[in-house]
Amino acid sequence: MAPLQFGALMIPYQTIDAIGPLDILSSASKKLIAAFEEADLPGMKGMTAKAIDIEFHHINETLEPVTLTANVRLLPSTTCDTCPALDFLLVGGPDPLAYKLSPRFAEFIRQHVAEGKVLFTTCTGALAVAASGVLDGKNATVNHAFVEMAKKMAPVVKWQKRQWVVDGNIWTAGGACAGMDMFASWVMTNYGMDIARFVFGALDFEPRDVEGALVLPRQHGVKSA
Amino acid sequence: MAPLQFGALMIPYQTIDAIGPLDILSSASKKLIAAFEEADLPGMKGMTAKAIDIEFHHINETLEPVTLTANVRLLPSTTCDTCPALDFLLVGGPDPLAYKLSPRFAEFIRQHVAEGKVLFTTCTGALAVAASGVLDGKNATVNHAFVEMAKKMAPVVKWQKRQWVVDGNIWTAGGACAGMDMFASWVMTNYGMDIARFVFGALDFEPRDVEGALVLPRQHGVKSA
Repeated sequence: MAPLQFGALMIPYQTIDAIGPLDILSSASKKLIAAFEEADLPGMKGMTAKAIDIEFHHINETLEPVTLTANVRLLPSTTCDTCPALDFLLVGGPDPLAYKLSPRFAEFIRQHVAEGKVLFTTCTGALAVAASGVLDGKNATVNHAFVEMAKKMAPVVKWQKRQWVVDGNIWTAGGACAGMDMFASWVMTNYGMDIARFVFGALDFEPRDVEGALVLPRQHGVKSA
Repeated sequence: MAPLQFGALMIPYQTIDAIGPLDILSSASKKLIAAFEEADLPGMKGMTAKAIDIEFHHINETLEPVTLTANVRLLPSTTCDTCPALDFLLVGGPDPLAYKLSPRFAEFIRQHVAEGKVLFTTCTGALAVAASGVLDGKNATVNHAFVEMAKKMAPVVKWQKRQWVVDGNIWTAGGACAGMDMFASWVMTNYGMDIARFVFGALDFEPRDVEGALVLPRQHGVKSA
């Protein structure tokens, strides 16, 4: 089977909104896990076969770099016009006070969703995406600090204050770490607990479920259960 | 007072190892918080005065981009030779099987530490930094999957399996999310709980303390206390 094609749209998002989810996936990737299995690291035997065969694309309107939070300047790997066919598209959260979705990005998002491909948003990404119309009439969430703003700016969307919301092929999450939790859930469901436990251990990540409760018993807590 | 100068050394780290900490700091920055206070968002009155005045630098040996995990290509903002005087330096974790610290980076790290400035590492960053000699005889930690490897590769370091370790001006953390926890602790200690609570809420981040237990009551949990 061909590798999954995973794209991140380079609106000027808060860096961790995309990097958190992307590094959960890259930690679960055949590329990383095969290197560890080949080096015979403990617990890695047979893991490559269970890992995600995935390639990542960073998509801008042009090949110009984009400046994100913390003075991060990221280079696109492709453009809206040259991007290979994607299976998944992620939109992180831009500054909701200043950002306006461009017509080209809006068209790119609409086409992706119309083809039945999966769209993920994190943080204020849903508010940016709402301007494309793909959330019209859908259940969705957004960074919880901006739910009221979202209701005013995009009243046709059924905004909910949840950790994440799945409506058809559109997955929307709240703040950055809720976005990581959403991807943790996606990995557990689609690739199983062996891969998930490896990823969570490698990142020392303790994901929460859709209600905000820990998925697994604490890895390190000595005070709590 | 001049802004804090915060640098991230562009060894080919796992992207989230640096971006997690950097976006905690950027979310606590005067730049971001002033924009929210000026827009009169709820709860922001008086917050800019408490925020961190900080500038970020991404430091490579040259101005060539660096490819990180998830196909992220980052542009340096400066080089080892042109970087302004730093207050803080962060080293994220590279692939411990393949990465060798370059002489120029080793010299840069040694000089930073010798000047009494603060060095932070996350994930396998401590293992990379150990090659510079600055951890000799010091207490330190590293991604917990690599503590045994670290003991073999750098036996002069007093490796510990803790969430993070502070020894003098050197702060070392375990996996990526333990690194985020370490920076959460740093923000709480130095900038207080008003700023910390804003950051944790904005990122939907529930940091753990040095023993791995939650710092604050759960923000969203309905199942757990």
